[in-house]
Amino acid sequence: MRTLGIDPGSRITGIGVVEQSGGRLRVLHYAALRLGDGPFPDRLGHLFREVRTAAGSYAVDAAAVETVYVKRNVESALKLGQARGAAIAALVEAGLPVGEYTPARIKEAVVGRGTASKDQVGFMVQRLLGLEEAPPEDAADALGVAVCHLHHLQAAVRVPGRGRRR
Amino acid sequence: MRTLGIDPGSRITGIGVVEQSGGRLRVLHYAALRLGDGPFPDRLGHLFREVRTAAGSYAVDAAAVETVYVKRNVESALKLGQARGAAIAALVEAGLPVGEYTPARIKEAVVGRGTASKDQVGFMVQRLLGLEEAPPEDAADALGVAVCHLHHLQAAVRVPGRGRRR
Repeated sequence: MRTLGIDPGSRITGIGVVEQSGGRLRVLHYAALRLGDGPFPDRLGHLFREVRTAAGSYAVDAAAVETVYVKRNVESALKLGQARGAAIAALVEAGLPVGEYTPARIKEAVVGRGTASKDQVGFMVQRLLGLEEAPPEDAADALGVAVCHLHHLQAAVRVPGRGRRR
Repeated sequence: MRTLGIDPGSRITGIGVVEQSGGRLRVLHYAALRLGDGPFPDRLGHLFREVRTAAGSYAVDAAAVETVYVKRNVESALKLGQARGAAIAALVEAGLPVGEYTPARIKEAVVGRGTASKDQVGFMVQRLLGLEEAPPEDAADALGVAVCHLHHLQAAVRVPGRGRRR
């Protein structure tokens, strides 16, 4: 099972692909996409293509996107929303079902605590996935989304059997 | 010259295709896309496909999108931004250059006054384009964007010649 996680941003968008097989997690790809300073439509087109290419190149089975957390103003929300919309369109266009998780849910899955700090998420992502070096922050968040989605999908699979419902 | 105009919205997105030849404007297509009540990613995927299909079916030369006007909260801005991002990604993916216009600029182009009302835009769009009946509001706005973009592109073409710069 391979999942693609996305942490959308209007300047930098994190992408991460994680594979789970036999209880082991392995990173296939991660990137922190800088969208550059060009015209905004070009940036969105670039983001769209990168996401679709990653989904295709790694033959992922499912994808998930972090729920955007906007603490700033309406203008920021609009820009962030546009990046998120382009990324989600690329995933749907790649034929993938798309999950959505709040930052708290992702932290809970990765660190075991919904109020964990950014540093703790980065540390645990690196450790859980056996990475030799720490990924850039946005990529670490995206890998966290991918891990969270794997947890969720496996819990869903366990429900009909004899496993514990979480 | 054919332009595709879009008035993005998280519930309804207006699309309009206008052709100009020999000083005459003609509507080739308009629609008010209802995105339905399904999961948000599916709605964005639907919007993406409809926009890309319209761009391809009518062999448009250029596209433009209304600058989103957010008077409400951050949550609304986020949703609207996502719809706008999916629509712009579809236009870029269709290989089109994408212009952006503020509502005031569009009203100026259609009615001749940046402070015109919605009704006045609808009336003038119907009249300018020789439509027998008034299009739905979102479609009328999208047709207005397409007309505005035609004006702009023609002004740009005139600049190197002897025409007046606007």
